[in-house]
Formats: sequence, structure tokens, C-alpha cells
Amino acid sequence: MDARPIGMFDSGVGGLTVLHECLVTLPHEDFVYFGDSHPDRFPYGPKPAGVIARFAHEVAAHLAALDVKLIVVACNAATASALPGLQREFAVPLIGVITPEAHAAVQATRTRRVGVMATEATVASGRYPQAVHLLDAGIEVAQVACPLLVPLIQSGDVHGEELHDAARAYAAELKDADVDTVILGCTHYPLIRPMLQRIFGRGVTLITSAEEIAREAADTVARRGVSNEPGREGTYRFMCTGDPGAFREVAGRFLQLPLTEVERVDPAALAVAA
Amino acid sequence: MDARPIGMFDSGVGGLTVLHECLVTLPHEDFVYFGDSHPDRFPYGPKPAGVIARFAHEVAAHLAALDVKLIVVACNAATASALPGLQREFAVPLIGVITPEAHAAVQATRTRRVGVMATEATVASGRYPQAVHLLDAGIEVAQVACPLLVPLIQSGDVHGEELHDAARAYAAELKDADVDTVILGCTHYPLIRPMLQRIFGRGVTLITSAEEIAREAADTVARRGVSNEPGREGTYRFMCTGDPGAFREVAGRFLQLPLTEVERVDPAALAVAA
Repeated sequence: MDARPIGMFDSGVGGLTVLHECLVTLPHEDFVYFGDSHPDRFPYGPKPAGVIARFAHEVAAHLAALDVKLIVVACNAATASALPGLQREFAVPLIGVITPEAHAAVQATRTRRVGVMATEATVASGRYPQAVHLLDAGIEVAQVACPLLVPLIQSGDVHGEELHDAARAYAAELKDADVDTVILGCTHYPLIRPMLQRIFGRGVTLITSAEEIAREAADTVARRGVSNEPGREGTYRFMCTGDPGAFREVAGRFLQLPLTEVERVDPAALAVAA
Repeated sequence: MDARPIGMFDSGVGGLTVLHECLVTLPHEDFVYFGDSHPDRFPYGPKPAGVIARFAHEVAAHLAALDVKLIVVACNAATASALPGLQREFAVPLIGVITPEAHAAVQATRTRRVGVMATEATVASGRYPQAVHLLDAGIEVAQVACPLLVPLIQSGDVHGEELHDAARAYAAELKDADVDTVILGCTHYPLIRPMLQRIFGRGVTLITSAEEIAREAADTVARRGVSNEPGREGTYRFMCTGDPGAFREVAGRFLQLPLTEVERVDPAALAVAA
């Protein structure tokens, strides 16, 4: 039995889709979610790798000081730029996105043609094809960078025509590549999953970061023997470096659960403590 | 529903520990096991990588011609030397050992100090540390090559003093490295798992290729939607390139289940057909 909470972070609210899946999969665990949402820091995606690594280090240090038993890096940019460094620096175990979805896609594909929808930075990093090929060198991976999706999803109109058109255009490239499995390689994308499933059709398996990392977190906690008491109802709380009101306003749609306490953490104090 | 069998191969009988776990985990699936046991071919371990790759290609071609839905490479040497090439060559999906155990060990370790016991070739290939570090760059991996274990286990006296002394000596190196999780990185080692668990103590988690690849195969079949009818009792049969009588004599101990038909396949015909 291990009553310590699980920590999780992202530069904004996207990681809340991961938290949602973790809260469903591990209802008896406590969670602390850190959104690094200050305008000087959010979003990580377009920033240089060195800057992302510094921000991620500061946030991970803050979570580690709260005595979490596991840190989930619920952000593609931070996973790609910072995860190995964080794992070497910190005693607390860290897991990230990318490898869990790659693993699930390898298991799911029947035609061994896998598509990836992700932000430009994630596509450019080549981490998804690399992770897929480590498990099955014979799988063809088609990637499409989807720069319009995050701003459109973030803006709120997830059923709008503009988002639909953009999603259809990106999906067309993967349909041309005749994939039977598509990795939704960004924590924002679960919000348009129903739309994407309709565009691709039922014959295509969609794999999300959120579901796969929830499975990975659950396996990790179980195998390590650090589960909290089964049957209890876990708690979750939030901290962010930006304005808590603004965070709260957007967060509900991503979390799909009632929002609790949102504490503001001063980014200057974060940098000093790390 | 997919009634096709699952193929599996190794150079000898070691892979039967993998088949055992698969038969327990997937009792409703049919299996075909191929032991490449001809004295000119067995064991793969000490042979050059190019030779192993050629043998593995011939055996995989034979299994593919039987219309299997998945091929499990139940052999460390063949996985290390041949798996990526086979995956590029064949349309049928192939899974191998190494990455499943590495994944399980990363999930299981609390101290993030992992040990590996394996044959000299597997240790020299560095594939286990590589696979572990891809998932958690901060884990320390201690490897020990155990050249005496396979011949002693193969000879039959798994409760003998000589084997016990050898196992104790190899384990001592990993105990000195203070690991809390040990990968048994050879398909022969499950036969001495109880002995190793006593040597390491209950506090150390042992991870076997056999259990982890059974889990991987089960997930793959389920996610791909190619399961056979649930509730039915699956069949299993054997082929080998060596003497079927000799195969049968050793195989029972590794399979821990009644042996069925063992068909001899002429290695010369194998080479021509591939």
C-alpha cells in the first residue's frame, strides 16, 4: 500500500485528457496535475529543446518535492525533449508518452501500415517511427504534421466547420497511405476523436496517448506494488503557473470531470527551487 | 474470429518454456512449434549472426507457408540477430523476446536497479540495456553472462549441486549490484526459477521471457482482432529438423504438458523452399 499521489504535468491543459483516462483507470489513486501555463512558458511545443528541458526540470523538481510516487510526462514536446534527462536526474520514476502508443499501434495493426497525426515538432523528432520500428522493423509509418489542430481545439469550437475541414485534410494524407491504425500523437486530439473516427471509418483503429499511458501507469503501479488502497475514491488537484481562472475556464472540457482546487505556483519560485 | 495457428520457433527446446506460457495464457489458440534441432544447426547461440539470420529466415518461411497468423521468435539469439530482418521480409507479423521483458522490468523495479542473466551472446549484444534505457534512461542495468547454465539445464539435472553452485555464483554478481529486479534473459532459465528465487530472496522480482512474450502475444491477438473462438481447446504440434525421438525426450521437461505429434522436417528441403 502506498498512499503517495501520482504527479503529472504538461505545459497547458492538453495533458488533462491523460489525467481523465488515469482517473478512470486508477480511481483509487490520488493525482496532482501541474499545468505550466504562464504565458512566458506555455506552450512548450514551439520552444527550443533546451528551454523545454529547463522548464520540465523545474516542474518535475516541484512535483518530486511533493513526494509523488510516479511522474507522468503528459506532453509530447516534453517527452521528446526532456524525458531521458529527467529520468537520469530524478530518483522518482518518470514515464512519458510516445512509446506506449507506439507499442499499442504495433499490436493493433493488421496491415502493418500505421499513421501518426501529431504537431510539427513531434513529427520532426521522428520519435514515433523510431519507437514503432524498434518493435517491428517491417511496419510502414506515415506521419502527418497537423499544425492547425491544437489552436482550433484550444479555441473551443470542437464541432466547428473549420476544425472539421482541417481534420479531413490531414486525415486524407493518411487515408491515401492506406493505414489501418492511426496514433493520435498529441494530448489535445482525444477531444476530436469521434470526428476522426467518422472521417477514417470504423475499419481504422485510433490509438490515443491518453489511454495508452493510463494503461502504462496502471501496470507500473501494480507491478511495483505501490498501489493505494483499492476501493477508496482517489482525489485530484491542480497547480498552474499561469492564471488559475483562465486555467479553470479551459480545463473542464479536457478533464470531463468536475474541477477541484487550482493553486497558483509562482514561476520565479519554481526556477529558484529547482 | 481467426482460426489460423500461431507459429513459434527456437533452435532447440528452450522456446518450449515460451510455448508453455502461451498455452496457459491463450488456451483457445492453436500453435505450431518449430525446433531447429539438427546437429548442424542447433544451437544458434554460438553461431555468427549471418548464419543465424539465414537459419531463422528458412524456418520463418516454413511457418509462413503454413499460414500462421503470428510468428513468435522464442529465442534470444534469433531475436538479437535476425528479428528486424525477418520483420522486413515477411508479411506475417513477428514478435520476439527482449523488448517485452525489458518493458516488464522497467515497470517492476522500485530501486531502478535491474539485473540481467543471459547467455554470453545476448549480454554482448547489449540489447537488454538498450531496450531498458529507451524506456527509462535513469535505470542502472547490471548484466551477467551465464555460460554454464544452458548446458547444465539441458543435461537434465536441474536440482543438482553443480547447477546450484553455478547459479549462486552468477547471482552473487547481481546481488552485489543491489538490483531489485532480474530479467531471466534466456528461454532455458524458467526451469530453475524456483532455485533462483530462493537465491535472490522474495524481495527480488524475477522477469522471464516466457511470461512476458505470452502477454505480448495475447495483447497482439486481442488488439488485432484475430483471436480464435473463446472457450474452445486449442491444439499444439511440433516439428523439428533433428531426430524427433531426441526432441521428444528433452521436450517434456520444458513444455510441462503432454507432448503430441513431432514431425521431422528435412533441413535440406527447408533451405530449398526458403
